[in-house]
Order: sequence, then C-alpha cells, then structure tokens
Amino acid sequence: MTDASLAEVVAAAAAAPSTDLLGLTAALVAVPSVSLAEEPLADAVEARLRRINGLDVERVGVNIVARTNLGRERRVVMAGHLDTVPANNNAIPRIEGEVLHGLGAADMKSGVAVLLRLAEEVAAESRFDCTFVFYEAEEIADEYNGLRKLFAERPDLVAGDFAVLLEPTDLWMEAGCQGSIRLEATFHGRRAHTARPWQGDNAIDRAAPTLQRLAGLQPQPLEVDGLTFRQALSVVSVQGGVAGNVVPDRCTVVVNRRYAPSLTLEEAEAEVRALLDGADEVELTSVSPAAHPNLSHPLVAEFAGLLDLPVRCKLGWTDVARFSAHGVPAVNFGPGDPEVSHTAGEHVTRASVEGCYTALAAFLRGAAR
Amino acid sequence: MTDASLAEVVAAAAAAPSTDLLGLTAALVAVPSVSLAEEPLADAVEARLRRINGLDVERVGVNIVARTNLGRERRVVMAGHLDTVPANNNAIPRIEGEVLHGLGAADMKSGVAVLLRLAEEVAAESRFDCTFVFYEAEEIADEYNGLRKLFAERPDLVAGDFAVLLEPTDLWMEAGCQGSIRLEATFHGRRAHTARPWQGDNAIDRAAPTLQRLAGLQPQPLEVDGLTFRQALSVVSVQGGVAGNVVPDRCTVVVNRRYAPSLTLEEAEAEVRALLDGADEVELTSVSPAAHPNLSHPLVAEFAGLLDLPVRCKLGWTDVARFSAHGVPAVNFGPGDPEVSHTAGEHVTRASVEGCYTALAAFLRGAAR
Repeated sequence: MTDASLAEVVAAAAAAPSTDLLGLTAALVAVPSVSLAEEPLADAVEARLRRINGLDVERVGVNIVARTNLGRERRVVMAGHLDTVPANNNAIPRIEGEVLHGLGAADMKSGVAVLLRLAEEVAAESRFDCTFVFYEAEEIADEYNGLRKLFAERPDLVAGDFAVLLEPTDLWMEAGCQGSIRLEATFHGRRAHTARPWQGDNAIDRAAPTLQRLAGLQPQPLEVDGLTFRQALSVVSVQGGVAGNVVPDRCTVVVNRRYAPSLTLEEAEAEVRALLDGADEVELTSVSPAAHPNLSHPLVAEFAGLLDLPVRCKLGWTDVARFSAHGVPAVNFGPGDPEVSHTAGEHVTRASVEGCYTALAAFLRGAAR
Repeated sequence: MTDASLAEVVAAAAAAPSTDLLGLTAALVAVPSVSLAEEPLADAVEARLRRINGLDVERVGVNIVARTNLGRERRVVMAGHLDTVPANNNAIPRIEGEVLHGLGAADMKSGVAVLLRLAEEVAAESRFDCTFVFYEAEEIADEYNGLRKLFAERPDLVAGDFAVLLEPTDLWMEAGCQGSIRLEATFHGRRAHTARPWQGDNAIDRAAPTLQRLAGLQPQPLEVDGLTFRQALSVVSVQGGVAGNVVPDRCTVVVNRRYAPSLTLEEAEAEVRALLDGADEVELTSVSPAAHPNLSHPLVAEFAGLLDLPVRCKLGWTDVARFSAHGVPAVNFGPGDPEVSHTAGEHVTRASVEGCYTALAAFLRGAAR
C-alpha cells in the first residue's frame, strides 16, 4: 500500500458514519494494522474520539483511552485491540449482502466499530462512567500487549468496576478463562560413547517413565460458577540428543497445563511438578493466570441478566484475565464467530455487529433490550 | 604456523632417521595434520617412501600407497591414517625421558613411524609382499575417509591377504569390530491448540511407550571366535514440539545399535525395527558393518600365535571393518594407549613404539619375537 492510499483509507475510517456499523467496520478493515503496525489505525480512531464532546482522550504510544467523567458511581471499561494477525489473502474488505469479509472483520474491528459508536452516541447518557480502550499487539507475545503497557504505566486510565472485551464471542457472554502455565523439566545424564553406553547414563532413558506417565493424561473438568471448565495437560516439547554416537546427557520436557479458575496457580503448578517427579530440575517458564467467571458479581450478573445472554466459559486465554488479575471483573462479549478468527474466511454479519451494539447500549442505558 | 616454519617441520619429518622411532614420531607430530589438512604430512611421508629402493609409490590425492613386488605368494597390507583430531593445547611435541607427548603421538603418528621404518628396513626381506598405506580423514565423517576413496578408486592398491591397521591398541591384537546402525523412527500426530488437546493427537505421547520400552534395554553379549562382544543399544535423540501452545504433530526418535559380528546387518536392523513397533515410519539412516574377528584365518592365527599377542575385540568401529567388508581379514595392532587418544594428555612411550616395530618386523620376517 502506498503512502497516499494509506492516507486515504485512514481518512475514510476517520470519517465513516457509525450509523452504518458494517460500513464502519469495513472502513476499519481497510486500514492495515498487523501487530506492531497499528499506528495508522490508531490515528483514525484517535481522530474520531477527539471529535466527541465530553470525552477525555489520552494516547499512550499507539494505545488510545477515551473516558467520560460524569461523576457516576461506577465505571465500565470497554476494550478492543487494534491489531490483526497477518493477512491471508483477505486484506481487502468485501461486503456481500449483509456480510463483511476481510482480515479483522470478526477479530476484532467489528468490536472496535461498536466501541466507537457507543462513545459517539451512548456514553454521554450512560448510567456508568465509560472508559473506551483501544490497544495494540494483542495477537502476539504478551510482552508487546498494549493493555499490559497501560496497566503498567497508566493504571488510572484502565481502572473500573467491570470490563467488557469485545473479542468475537458470537454474542455469547464468555466468563472467566483458564489459566495456562508451562513447566520445563530437565533430566540429566552422563555422556558416553554409544559403543560403551554402560559408562554413561542416558538422559532420554531417564525421561521415558515421565513421558509415559504424562501420555494421554487429562485432568478432570471442573465446575466454577456453574460453568464447566475442561482442563488440559499437554507435553508440548521433548528435546534430547548430542550426536549419533553419543549417549545423551540432557533431555528436556515441556508441559503446558490449562487449569480452571477454581485452582490457584500454585495448586496447578504443584500438580504438574508432582507429575514431573524424577526430573532433576523443574522450572516454571510461563504463567498466564486464570480468571474467575465472577458470575455472582453484581455488574456481571446484571450484564448477563439484563441482556438475557447465554453464558459459557472461555477455553483459551484472553485479556479478561488481565483485568481479573487487577481486580476488575471482566467478560468477553463481541460480534463475530470466534471460529473464523485467524482464518482466510474471516467475516462478520450485520446482525452480529448491530446486536452487540444494541446490547451494550441497553446495558449502559439500563434498559432491557 | 608460518609457511616457512611449516616447510621446516616437513623437511625435518622427511629427514628424521627412523632408527630413533620416538624421535621420528615427534618429527611427524610436529607437522600439523588435522583432518582435511594432511597435505604437508603426506608430502613428508611421500618424500621418505620415494627414497626407498624397490618400492612402487603411488599418490592418490593425499593418500600414499607404497608396495613391494617381490613375487611373494601372499601380500600383507599395513595401514595408518595421517590425520589427527583438532589440537587440544598439545600441538607441539615434547619428549620427556622415554615418553613423547603431543597430538597424534598415540593416534597414530607412532604407527606411521613404525610403518615408515618397516618400509625402509624390513619390506625388501619380508616373506610377504608388503603394501604400506597412509591415508587421510579417518577421524571425521566416513564420506571423507581416504581408505574409502582408495577402495572405490584404486582397489588394486589396497588388495591383499591380510591387513594390519596400526591404530593404538597398546600392543594388543584387536580382532573384529562391532557393527553400528542408526534408525530414525517418526511418530505422527495432529496439531491442536493446547486449550483443546482432545481435538488433536499428541505425537510425543504416541512416542512415549516406545521410549519406555527402549529405556535401559541392552542386548546380550555375544561370543564370536571366543571373544565376547558387548552389544549396545542407545536412544541417541528425541525431538518433538511445535510451539508452547500447540499439541505437537511429530516426534522423532533415533536409536543407535552396536551389534556383534555374528549378527548380519539385516538381523540387527530387524531387531531394532521390532522395538520401534508403533512408529509410523522407521528409516535406516546409517550403517557401519561389523567385522568378524576371523581368528581361524591362517594369517590372523599366525599373526597372533607367532607374536604371542593378547587378543581382544574392538568395541568401537574402525577401518578393519572396511578391509573385512572387502574380503581382507584385518586386525588393529599398534603402539600407544587407546584411552589417551583424542585427549589433551595424549602420549606414547618409546617401549610401545619399539615393541610394535619389533613385533611387525618379526612377523614379516617369519621369526618369533
């Protein structure tokens, strides 16, 4: 895309009327925003937000936060990420009838379009103070995540009593999410020439009983707040070997455990460590904490109840856990089918985008849909 | 080493009197000859051989073959490699009393020194026609091996009725050697997100029972010609894993089997394939055939008997198997302790070099030591 045509799609996204939500989503899809290249899209979003009366707009890098200050008792944070995964022959938006096809149509520029219209049409008359968060780099390694940056550098901007992430959920309320930890186990041995293996100690042989114990093992599902969390345990890596004629002196095994939010991180870790018994070293190498569904929290209950939403848990990890870890109960609720995210056939329907907007507007105004 | 000082050590090696075998070995050690950089040493060896009356000297690349043509009924091939492993702070030869320290002192420039003196002093009066082979690149991958090259390009030069390799054996006769094969087993699976492993099939889990079956398994020793061959089986590599949140779809396991020469390659391979049952693919990736001890072969028996040598089998693989595969019974017999080969402390004693020379000279002349 040339600089000139990029400027053109940015201007179009900044100007598109939000009354046509599918059209606005298409205008947002037209602005490329692969992770770490979200700046043009952030510019368009910022331009729109700065035109709205009564919103305090702050930009932190390529993250934009717009807040009302109506003096309401409670504050609702609504958030969407600006980035997409790389294009898969679907960079150009295409509307066919009532369906928009294109990269980010579901994940999650339709959610961003809904947030923009809520900011423009509903925020000023909301029964809650509203915070709209648009952030970078959700689709890549956590260290780049814009929401992480905001919580670290400007926690005041993302504070609130309840958070809604507009990730695609097909208008289900997704409550809570599994935690995910990775542990790396190392088995030591002693090198020897394979003509004389009895002079050494084979580290792969030492790892074998542990691999055998882990094979096919799946933790039981757990119920939390009436939702069933299917837990999971997978050996994701095994690496050992020095050379074709050397008894290997080292073998590493990496296990990924997905755990229900009724377990603590420490409990999940202890469980995996017990299974890795026999290893010489076990290290916790990655932690993504779980998020409790918090269905009994007043705002979560009201959100689900008022809108009469179907509720399920999230198997994968999402940024609801980040809000949850900072004490803000959070749910995913957004337009689009999560199953088409990250695929060449990504799309969203007009009914889904409109439905999301209608539901959130009703929640903010305090009226049933 | 500068060009000038290299020319100097080459000239010294070409001129050193073979009557002082330890001194000649030191002169050979002084000429660097790490694998694939043997040319200067080959030049020195060639210069010495060309001064000897009655020897036909041929050079094939950096391999030198010198042969008598006395019309004897039988021909004995005596061979030594010119190359060394890389230096380990021991490139400069150092004689202390009756011990020479330095890279290649044992493996196997002392053997090369013995061959040169035999060519100079004994070959003309031997009861066998003699072939002296000096070859490159024994210490690295087989594809570079000079003896392999000679058997492929000039089999006439290495033909004979019996072969002696002057690898360090501490003056034991090492008869036969184990074969070595490697097989790679691949286990397939189906990728899935680790939040939903039940949608995939974990290839590491599929490999686990095989690894468990192989762990610690050692084949029984086998007797061949009264020598005990300790066989061996080692898992030398295991590799699996795609990413920290992906159920892996592929795991490979590599097994190295060392087998006694009473087994055929096919028997050894079938045994390993049976142990790898459960793998989706098994491929034979490396073959080094075994060599039978051939202790009942007249020349082997005469060599051991006349010289009253202690006999053992070779656990590692050596070029005796190459001669054996070409129908030439072969043994290892050389000066120096095999245990110090490839170590910083490599050395050889005067008694060992002299002992080797005396024994081989006696064998060629047909007199007991």
